[in-house]
Amino acid sequence: MQFTIKKSVINDALSKVSRAISFKSPLPILTGIHFHLSTNALTLTGSNSDITIRTTITDDIDIEEIGDTVISSKYILEIIRHMDSDLISIDTNDKDITVIEGASSHFELNGSPASDYPVIDLSKKGTHVTIKSMDLKAAIDQTVFATSDKETRPVLTGVNFLADGEELVCIATDSYRLAKKTLSVDDEMFFNIVIPKKSLIEISRLITRDDIIDIYVEDKKIIFDIDNILIQTRLIDGKYPNISRLIPDHYDSVMSINSASLIGANERVSLLADQTNNIVKLTMSEEEVILSSFSPEIGSVEEKLDKAFYKGSALSVSFTSKYLIDAIKSINSETVKLQFTGKMQPFIIRDIESDDNIQVVLPVRTY
Amino acid sequence: MQFTIKKSVINDALSKVSRAISFKSPLPILTGIHFHLSTNALTLTGSNSDITIRTTITDDIDIEEIGDTVISSKYILEIIRHMDSDLISIDTNDKDITVIEGASSHFELNGSPASDYPVIDLSKKGTHVTIKSMDLKAAIDQTVFATSDKETRPVLTGVNFLADGEELVCIATDSYRLAKKTLSVDDEMFFNIVIPKKSLIEISRLITRDDIIDIYVEDKKIIFDIDNILIQTRLIDGKYPNISRLIPDHYDSVMSINSASLIGANERVSLLADQTNNIVKLTMSEEEVILSSFSPEIGSVEEKLDKAFYKGSALSVSFTSKYLIDAIKSINSETVKLQFTGKMQPFIIRDIESDDNIQVVLPVRTY
Repeated sequence: MQFTIKKSVINDALSKVSRAISFKSPLPILTGIHFHLSTNALTLTGSNSDITIRTTITDDIDIEEIGDTVISSKYILEIIRHMDSDLISIDTNDKDITVIEGASSHFELNGSPASDYPVIDLSKKGTHVTIKSMDLKAAIDQTVFATSDKETRPVLTGVNFLADGEELVCIATDSYRLAKKTLSVDDEMFFNIVIPKKSLIEISRLITRDDIIDIYVEDKKIIFDIDNILIQTRLIDGKYPNISRLIPDHYDSVMSINSASLIGANERVSLLADQTNNIVKLTMSEEEVILSSFSPEIGSVEEKLDKAFYKGSALSVSFTSKYLIDAIKSINSETVKLQFTGKMQPFIIRDIESDDNIQVVLPVRTY
Repeated sequence: MQFTIKKSVINDALSKVSRAISFKSPLPILTGIHFHLSTNALTLTGSNSDITIRTTITDDIDIEEIGDTVISSKYILEIIRHMDSDLISIDTNDKDITVIEGASSHFELNGSPASDYPVIDLSKKGTHVTIKSMDLKAAIDQTVFATSDKETRPVLTGVNFLADGEELVCIATDSYRLAKKTLSVDDEMFFNIVIPKKSLIEISRLITRDDIIDIYVEDKKIIFDIDNILIQTRLIDGKYPNISRLIPDHYDSVMSINSASLIGANERVSLLADQTNNIVKLTMSEEEVILSSFSPEIGSVEEKLDKAFYKGSALSVSFTSKYLIDAIKSINSETVKLQFTGKMQPFIIRDIESDDNIQVVLPVRTY
């Protein structure tokens, strides 16, 4: 395998495919990047068993001799990044030793034969649908933070994508808070799948511009074709719980407030809250709204939310401050609306006008 | 104790004195900041047993009632930083509960009585000398990185400051490399002391502008008066070794090279060097100079140093790449000169013209 390529092009491609690689991979060969050079393209593949990222380069490359090899992801990335040359030549011999040259640098890297690399099927089978890139990115960014980190219920470590033909509903919950994003889709689609959190974070990162993304949904896996990059991820097995009972369908009182001021108050008030649970208390009446926290050893804090408008009976709820901050940030609007049904009932955080993005936080009992 | 103060002023002062505080302090009260409010000034003190930093505020403060208290450094810093107000009022009652108010925020912090805080003598006794602030900063920055991290020889964890009346010589070594900075001083001074690395890093950080610094040297401690901030540090006990034998007094061959290109080559070549020892090899002749490294499992790298001029017999030396990079960076000139006396002899890195800053690296044996 022998070719010359623009440094920025190979650097960018390696950075992208290496995102799939885990250095804790049980299969050592998967800590490498698979290079496949044909007569007109270089295809790079990075994978752990869950996610595979593949990209194909056809421009800014001068192909001398076709071939395949596997090169340590860690070293090739660092070498290319540090090279002091705009053009880089890469030449692999039949013992999978790769010579990387540019300016006055000459690297020789031991690699592995491509035949040792597992066969990864990235053929575009299954149900084909399309989605607007920025819709998908928003759906991910507005839900993924609410997934669970605990492996005890694997299904909660992913986001549920449920398409019923007209709408795509994306839901994540760690059982303490919940995020629900509803997208209207142009393409008619039907599926009910759970995509792992880590894969979604990589997909969101790869979306950088307005585009139409092709998606291929199979039983056990899904492929996204984003801007000439294929990203395939396994789906999480198991039935996603029906969470509709967690989302209140009515409310008794409502508060609207400037988002930035509520985030600022939460950040200040949670400074004195217990560091593990981070519980703050919202005490609301039509006269005033107070956010407070108390920690017997350290002290207490109260902040009057001057910018809040509350309508309803006096009510106080305690909750994890970070969950509220995450929810407000995901809504990303100047003003948010909080809807309450009672002291220990889940409350909704949403945009003042739209209900595309519904965030739910469960209160905690305080003594 | 009661006063109102400008947020930026108290924030800046707290950030500075808190640098002395260690959360691993065996004395819990030392995790707090000591507040002393007199009729015309607020004095803040932070300390672990080794370093004490004290600053006095007389401007932008409105003093209502004098007093003393000790407030948790961690909480007061975070609270002030997050306050959404330009003016902050601080009011401590006789139970050492401090109320901090600004805008709509009201914090109450449990503190400790000032009488529990150890008495720290910061009176300016001992030998008084003065030094130019930027000279002191350079002396620290060009030596402190070469101190040892190992507590087996405590004296090597500090920088030796040796003043013989005309010159101030600052030396640091971890026995693998050595840094020597010579300052000509206006003030006649005589001392031979070792200042702990951590204290020097804080002193360098506090020097931000051209100034004359007052220094008071005692047997066991030293005080620096920098820009209205007093920093006192213990001195390290013990006799600093005579390291003059480590600095070659002649040389057989010499290489001069552009600093940036030698740093770049070292960064690239050390990518494949053993990660713990980071050994690279310089192979020099009057025809060419090559920097290389080799790691049996990973691969090898060679870089021709096109910009090097070497004069002398052919020679190769192996050394820890990071030590050379540290040395070149500390010299901070466009071109550096390396002087060699043999394969296993210490070599000197210095500025092409000045010998104020002498850096020495000891080669390692390679097989």
